[in-house]
Amino acid sequence: MYRIGIDLGGTNIAAGLVNESYELVRKKSVPTGAERPGEMIVADMAELCRNLCAEHGITMADVTAIGIASPGVANINTGIVEYANNLHFENFPLASLLGEKLGFENIKIANDANAAAWGEAVAGAAKGTSNSVMITLGTGVGGGIIIDNKIYTGFNCAGAELGHIVIEVDGVPCSCGRHGCWESYSSATALIRMTKEKIDECRATGRKSMMLDAPRVSGRLACDCMRAGDEAAKEVYDKYIKYLASGLATIVNIFQPEVISLGGGVSGEGQSLIDALLPLVRAQSYGVGFVKDLPELRIAKLGNDAGIIGAALLG
Amino acid sequence: MYRIGIDLGGTNIAAGLVNESYELVRKKSVPTGAERPGEMIVADMAELCRNLCAEHGITMADVTAIGIASPGVANINTGIVEYANNLHFENFPLASLLGEKLGFENIKIANDANAAAWGEAVAGAAKGTSNSVMITLGTGVGGGIIIDNKIYTGFNCAGAELGHIVIEVDGVPCSCGRHGCWESYSSATALIRMTKEKIDECRATGRKSMMLDAPRVSGRLACDCMRAGDEAAKEVYDKYIKYLASGLATIVNIFQPEVISLGGGVSGEGQSLIDALLPLVRAQSYGVGFVKDLPELRIAKLGNDAGIIGAALLG
Repeated sequence: MYRIGIDLGGTNIAAGLVNESYELVRKKSVPTGAERPGEMIVADMAELCRNLCAEHGITMADVTAIGIASPGVANINTGIVEYANNLHFENFPLASLLGEKLGFENIKIANDANAAAWGEAVAGAAKGTSNSVMITLGTGVGGGIIIDNKIYTGFNCAGAELGHIVIEVDGVPCSCGRHGCWESYSSATALIRMTKEKIDECRATGRKSMMLDAPRVSGRLACDCMRAGDEAAKEVYDKYIKYLASGLATIVNIFQPEVISLGGGVSGEGQSLIDALLPLVRAQSYGVGFVKDLPELRIAKLGNDAGIIGAALLG
Repeated sequence: MYRIGIDLGGTNIAAGLVNESYELVRKKSVPTGAERPGEMIVADMAELCRNLCAEHGITMADVTAIGIASPGVANINTGIVEYANNLHFENFPLASLLGEKLGFENIKIANDANAAAWGEAVAGAAKGTSNSVMITLGTGVGGGIIIDNKIYTGFNCAGAELGHIVIEVDGVPCSCGRHGCWESYSSATALIRMTKEKIDECRATGRKSMMLDAPRVSGRLACDCMRAGDEAAKEVYDKYIKYLASGLATIVNIFQPEVISLGGGVSGEGQSLIDALLPLVRAQSYGVGFVKDLPELRIAKLGNDAGIIGAALLG
C-alpha cells in the first residue's frame, strides 16, 4: 500500500508516492498557476494523484492516505486552509474538495513548514523522537514544532512562526512588519544581504576579497570564499553563524526538544554548519553544566522532499 | 477532601490546603533554611503538611494529593529535582522522601514557574483553556507553557525558560550567561535598572523629574510618577513596555496560545498594563488581519498563591 503526499507551493504542485517504509518512490510536479481559482488548482492536484498512480502501475485503491502541505494557515482538524496569501485562499476547504474530485476520504492538510517538520520527525533527522523542532533556512526562516508526536500549531493554527521571533528589537525590517525577526538575520536572503554589505564595505575601503570577483552574490559565496581563506568572507560567515546560533539557543531554552533539525538551502553546508553552530548554541543553552541531556542539532535528511513525505504521513 | 500544595522557595516554604473548588482555604509557611541538608528541609515540609491539617481540623487521610513547586530542574515524571542551585539539590528524590516522611504516595513535583502556570490554567486567568502560557514578571522573567492540558517541560525537564530568549543580540548581560535575554529587559529588576538609568541621566543633564525625589527606586516608581504626569518617568515606562511587548509578540508567534497570563510584581499594575501592551503586541503578532482568533492577554489571578495552588493540582 502507498500514501500520497502533495506539496502545494506558490510555483509548483509536487506530489509523491510514499511506500510503507516511508520512502518516496515516485515524484511528479506541475505548475501551480496560483492566480487561478482554487477549484482549478484542486482539479490539477487530483489529476496529479491519478497520474502518479498510473505511472507506478497502481490505482487509487492502493492508496491509504493523502496529505497536503499547504502554505499559510492550514487547519489540521478541519482540512480548511483558513488563509494563504500567495494562493488567494480564504477559508478554502482544500481537503474536502480534493476528496470529492478523487472519491477519497482520508485526506489531511498541514502548513508546509509543519508538514516538513513532521516528515523529518517520522522519517528523517528526528526519527525515533517524540519532541523535535525543525528550522528551515531558505528564502525565509520556517519552523515546525512536534510535541508528543503531534504537530503543534496553536489554538488558531497560526503558531510555530519561528522565523518571526525578534532577536534584535529595532533591528532589520522584516516582511512580516516587525523589526529584527530571526528570519531577517538567518535566512539565505539575510546571508546574501550580509554578503552584499561586506562587498560594498570592501569596495568602499579598498579591501581585497575574492567575493568582489563573483559574477553574482549567492548564499554560498561567503561560505565558499571563507573556505578558500578569504578573511572578509569569514567575517560574513561568522556574523551569520552568530545570529543563527542565538536563535537556536532560544529554541533550546524554550523547547528543549530531543532534536533540532536544520533544513533549507543553507543546510546544504552540512556538518560544517553544525560544527560552527554547536559551541555557540551550547554556550547559550540553559542547563549546560547541570542538565545531563541537551538537544541534538542535526542536518535535515529529506531535503526538498520533506514536505511531500511529511504530508503523506499526516493521515 | 483536600489537596496540599507546597511552594518550596529559596527563602520560605509556603504550603496550603486547596479544597475541591480549587480554592486555597488555609496557608502556612516556615523559613526554608536553604543551606541545610535536603533531608532536613523535607522534614520541615512534612511537619508543615501535618500542621496545616491539624489547624484545619482534618487529618492526612482527608488529603488526596500533594504537589510541590520546586525551583530548578524538576522532573515531573520521576519526582526527582535534578538540579536546584539555590537549594544545593542535585538528583534529589524530593517526592519520594516527602512520601516516606508522611506515609503518603500521591506526591508530584514541578518547576515553580511551571506549577504557577498550571495553577493559572486550571483555576486562574486561563481557566477553561487547553493551551496557555504564563509569564511571571518578578526578580526575573519566568515562564510556564501548558499544551493540551499538560505542563510542557521539554524532554530533559529544563524547557520553558522563557526569560532566556534573546531579544537583543549583544544586549544587556543576563545572570544566565547570555546577553540580551528578555529577562534583562522585562523583569522588575530591569524596570528598576531602566528607572535608575533615567534618574542618572536627569541628574547629569539637570532635567527635572519627580523620580529624583524618591527615597528609593522601586519597580513602581516610574509607573507612579508617570501617572502623576512626569515625562521622564513616561519615557522609562514606554521603553519597558516596548521590550515587554516585543517578547510577548514572540510568544504569540511561537505558541498562539488561547491565553497569555502575566503574573509577578509588575502585573500588579493590572489592566492598565494590558492596555499599554495590547496595541504593541497585536501590531507584531503573526496573523493579525487574517486570523480570526488571537491569543488573549490577561493579568494572572492567583497572585503569590499560584505556585501553591498549581502544585496542589498536579496530582
